[in-house]
Amino acid sequence: MAQDSVGIVEKRYFHFANPPEEMEFECGQRLGPLTLAYETYGELNSDRDNAVLVMHALTGDSHAAGYYEGDEKPGWWETMIGPGKGIDTNKYFVICSNVLGGCMGSTGPSSIDSRTGRPYALNFPLVTIGDMVQAQKHLIDALGIERLLAVIGGSMGGMQALEWSVRFPDMVRSAIPIATATKHSAMAIAFNEVSRQAIMNDPNWNNGEYYQETPPQHGQAVARMIGHVTYLSDIALRKKFDRPSNESSGESGFFAEFPVSNYLLYQGRKFVHRFDANSLLYLSRATDSFNLAQRYGDGSLVQAFSLASCKYLVLSFSSDWLYPTSQSRAMVKALKKSNIMVNFCEIDIDYGHDSFLVHNPKQAALVSGFLDQVHRESAWKWPENR
Amino acid sequence: MAQDSVGIVEKRYFHFANPPEEMEFECGQRLGPLTLAYETYGELNSDRDNAVLVMHALTGDSHAAGYYEGDEKPGWWETMIGPGKGIDTNKYFVICSNVLGGCMGSTGPSSIDSRTGRPYALNFPLVTIGDMVQAQKHLIDALGIERLLAVIGGSMGGMQALEWSVRFPDMVRSAIPIATATKHSAMAIAFNEVSRQAIMNDPNWNNGEYYQETPPQHGQAVARMIGHVTYLSDIALRKKFDRPSNESSGESGFFAEFPVSNYLLYQGRKFVHRFDANSLLYLSRATDSFNLAQRYGDGSLVQAFSLASCKYLVLSFSSDWLYPTSQSRAMVKALKKSNIMVNFCEIDIDYGHDSFLVHNPKQAALVSGFLDQVHRESAWKWPENR
Repeated sequence: MAQDSVGIVEKRYFHFANPPEEMEFECGQRLGPLTLAYETYGELNSDRDNAVLVMHALTGDSHAAGYYEGDEKPGWWETMIGPGKGIDTNKYFVICSNVLGGCMGSTGPSSIDSRTGRPYALNFPLVTIGDMVQAQKHLIDALGIERLLAVIGGSMGGMQALEWSVRFPDMVRSAIPIATATKHSAMAIAFNEVSRQAIMNDPNWNNGEYYQETPPQHGQAVARMIGHVTYLSDIALRKKFDRPSNESSGESGFFAEFPVSNYLLYQGRKFVHRFDANSLLYLSRATDSFNLAQRYGDGSLVQAFSLASCKYLVLSFSSDWLYPTSQSRAMVKALKKSNIMVNFCEIDIDYGHDSFLVHNPKQAALVSGFLDQVHRESAWKWPENR
Repeated sequence: MAQDSVGIVEKRYFHFANPPEEMEFECGQRLGPLTLAYETYGELNSDRDNAVLVMHALTGDSHAAGYYEGDEKPGWWETMIGPGKGIDTNKYFVICSNVLGGCMGSTGPSSIDSRTGRPYALNFPLVTIGDMVQAQKHLIDALGIERLLAVIGGSMGGMQALEWSVRFPDMVRSAIPIATATKHSAMAIAFNEVSRQAIMNDPNWNNGEYYQETPPQHGQAVARMIGHVTYLSDIALRKKFDRPSNESSGESGFFAEFPVSNYLLYQGRKFVHRFDANSLLYLSRATDSFNLAQRYGDGSLVQAFSLASCKYLVLSFSSDWLYPTSQSRAMVKALKKSNIMVNFCEIDIDYGHDSFLVHNPKQAALVSGFLDQVHRESAWKWPENR
């Protein structure tokens, strides 16, 4: 284990206590009891002002850093979280929870409905980014944290960071939305829709009632492959394979494989074993439905951001064609029009949308510098002084 | 029917006569008897120097222009082919054939193998772009045409145009590859691979033996949806829907649909009824395996193009991210290094890769002007004079 890892970590569970054991979702449905799986790294200081909430992307989980006992693979943001890293656990108390609707310990479609004794499946409420953030708010309250130093996340995690910053301005000192958008492009929605159709078209999906049977693994694998290709860039795909991309393997005939084939098949199959298909459907719908301007600004992004009072660091990646820099620029423009302090950087990196997940020293340096600055600022202006 | 349509047309069938009733594919397999479905528009002049060979894309067919008796929908390139259009049937004799390996009248995986009385299915040879062109050559010979004024096509059709120009230089006066590449990018291969996996993962695919049973319609619909999204641009997708892209339809709940959903579902379902899944697998593999530089230049594109002796008009589209302009530029650069005359234009248009199929006046004007020029040139230098 590397010196700069947070080391062995454990997943914890936050059970919503009374009140509220139940939570009302934005769709109007109430659900309970609810659980959020979460992890923390580093120590909350005595001023309780060094907490950083990390939010994961579509298929992520609460395991952002460190190693589970006996595991060889660290958490999904090990490159960013740890002693001396972009989010320095020597300075900050880091919290990451699995989203509501997920399948890695938090209540979601695969959780048992206490009323029926069976998984919720499609009886789970249509969860939104807002619901995810509402649930996280209960966790943060329970941890006794009044104000977060930062909310940070990439992709769907970035949407949650944006939602936090506008919805709970008094609780958020800074927000770092990475490789994300205030709403999905038509193309992002279209790719998500095809992924959903791949699952729902699989006869084994059975309207979500597959928990006692074979899950829709064919469709789910295809959904994952679609996601995987959209998360990468052409250069990243080329780099992954030594051989020229259209030189086939040794085999000949119909089943001869292109170098990319095995890679995609492996990704697809692996995913089936670690993720619940219904969760994927729910979470991908949540991202497609998210529209910050519509939620808070009557269609105006400037109006929506005028509710916020934190500082922003907006990051995008030059090779990310799914969440292109143009969307981040639009966000930055609206923030500036709302007189919000915002730093922005498009990082020149080849790994496409996945760039926030890979070794990315520039991202680490920018986040680290920004967090330090926000933490240092004693002359911080609270909302009432703006 | 519009005045500028070629009007009612008929599909014809070219049966390979002896010799050669059989054809040897590049993989070494021999197959016969073979048939190519084709159509012609306009008249071959007495000099036999006004023939234009049009080649279709992945899921196209021989029906490029005009209307079948009783049909309301014209051929796929009705916007480009007809009296006074980009390819003017008052001046030129236009030929379009369904590719070898296709399923719209030409011999392909769904054709009956005379040796077994059953469809070839996966016993069909691994067809290549080279094989398609070889088969077209037999057709052109049979039509008594010694030299084509132009070979033209978009996407997979453009690959065939490139192949023609390098392989049969004495038979080609000009080549117009549109929205294409001398080899697929890693990303294009990856998307094709996911499409193929969507079909092959469908239990109904049954290793290609589905002709007596239900075809792999779920997988095939998903494959089509993937294709459809990659052929379009974000702007094109947005334009297709009046409502904001992430505003759901009137319905609520899990099955509420995004505007793009119905569109994609419709495209997917329609496709299942008109196309053979095995053909799609074979043809998409053919495009992924195509590599002009490897075939003819030992890896060097300049060397490959040095075999050609025609003029080129290379067209790309600003919003085509699947076959980006950078690939066309690389092609143009290699052509210039080979001292080949080449005109190049990136057309600024929003419809993504599909731009060559839509109403595209600039494309029509460029093709029309180029064809006229090539046809006019009496001072044309034949290969021996270069």
